[in-house]
Amino acid sequence: MKKKKIYEGKTKKVYEGEHESELILEFKDDAVALSGSKPTHIRGKGMMNKQISVYLFRLLESYHIGTHLVRELSDKEILVKRLNMIPVVVMVHNVVAGKLVKSYGMKEGKELECPIIEYYLKDEERDDPMINEDHVVSFGHATSLEIKEMHRLASKSNAVLKAFLRRREFQLVDLRLEFGRHQNRLLLADEISLNTVRTIDLRYPELGILDGDNPRVAENLAQVKSRIFSA
Amino acid sequence: MKKKKIYEGKTKKVYEGEHESELILEFKDDAVALSGSKPTHIRGKGMMNKQISVYLFRLLESYHIGTHLVRELSDKEILVKRLNMIPVVVMVHNVVAGKLVKSYGMKEGKELECPIIEYYLKDEERDDPMINEDHVVSFGHATSLEIKEMHRLASKSNAVLKAFLRRREFQLVDLRLEFGRHQNRLLLADEISLNTVRTIDLRYPELGILDGDNPRVAENLAQVKSRIFSA
Repeated sequence: MKKKKIYEGKTKKVYEGEHESELILEFKDDAVALSGSKPTHIRGKGMMNKQISVYLFRLLESYHIGTHLVRELSDKEILVKRLNMIPVVVMVHNVVAGKLVKSYGMKEGKELECPIIEYYLKDEERDDPMINEDHVVSFGHATSLEIKEMHRLASKSNAVLKAFLRRREFQLVDLRLEFGRHQNRLLLADEISLNTVRTIDLRYPELGILDGDNPRVAENLAQVKSRIFSA
Repeated sequence: MKKKKIYEGKTKKVYEGEHESELILEFKDDAVALSGSKPTHIRGKGMMNKQISVYLFRLLESYHIGTHLVRELSDKEILVKRLNMIPVVVMVHNVVAGKLVKSYGMKEGKELECPIIEYYLKDEERDDPMINEDHVVSFGHATSLEIKEMHRLASKSNAVLKAFLRRREFQLVDLRLEFGRHQNRLLLADEISLNTVRTIDLRYPELGILDGDNPRVAENLAQVKSRIFSA
């Protein structure tokens, strides 16, 4: 059966699943293009991000954080529950970088005493503007209770992943999460991979912030992977 | 004694008071200049905004919302307590206008079921960027408890002013508030005037949103004033 593609984003393709209640996510090898530059491919990136997502979704499930993962399908594909998505991105910051420097003049690299949690509206036409809880409720995208639950799940996911990565000598810089509704419960959706988790390698801090498009990660996929998956 | 000027903003001059614990605010007649255009004066604006501020500060005090007002000094001047200011602007929106339309595509003029409360960092160099509670705490500008108290006081001030204006056939569109610390208590600071309170005149809704620089307000200061101050 030929799969029907529903959507293609920068890092994933989304297909109809065999059942109406499920979707197939295919992880792409594309480097997320910087504006103006052409997209390039990083061999093995899709497979690695799929493996990391599965591993970290299962880790979070073991801490009673529900996720949309059903099971692995192939090298680059996973089967997930089809959710009623909330069009809001939750960003959790542990270390000052990027926007916190540019918009607010905070000191780059400073570890935050408490994580900063931000909400962004998923609206490409408007460049995904930052919003707060009141906006989300006013737009009708989620109830106050749902936002509180998103906040709780984001904080907890961050704490679990931060400790997990720290034990492997990576510092969690920031984390990008999306949520959706499934049978009256909020589940973690999207992916948890080098596309959405940014770290500093504490063995090589001079390399700066690592994401899936960092040349060091691309050149050392096997090494990074073995450390992330080490017990 | 010649007063020592500490600061001059778009709408007010701030002088040292006779006692160290007090300041003098002088309300200016300047129309708040649109970028690129030259500032113009509106005769009577400073006096009117001073009168409205005093009236509304006293109204809020009667509802147990503390303010920095000590007493009136002259036509355009008030004496206030010198506070340890929190460099955050609290915006309360009751009706969709301005930024809510531009940034999020909300429908102009729509009355919100629940007010939207936003925080902005007072940082002219960075164009007063929007922030949330976590940023305020991370910057060290206020504690979590202080932010909760600012939120409570802003909500309550908004409810009082909204009802007060509604009885005078004005719809409260949005409200700009600043707070400061005084002897372990948060007090409402700055001004509450046509510079910081935007309304729609329900007798003449076709005139749009009124602020201190709206030509209609400028031309009809006496009429607007008599309605605001009516019992």
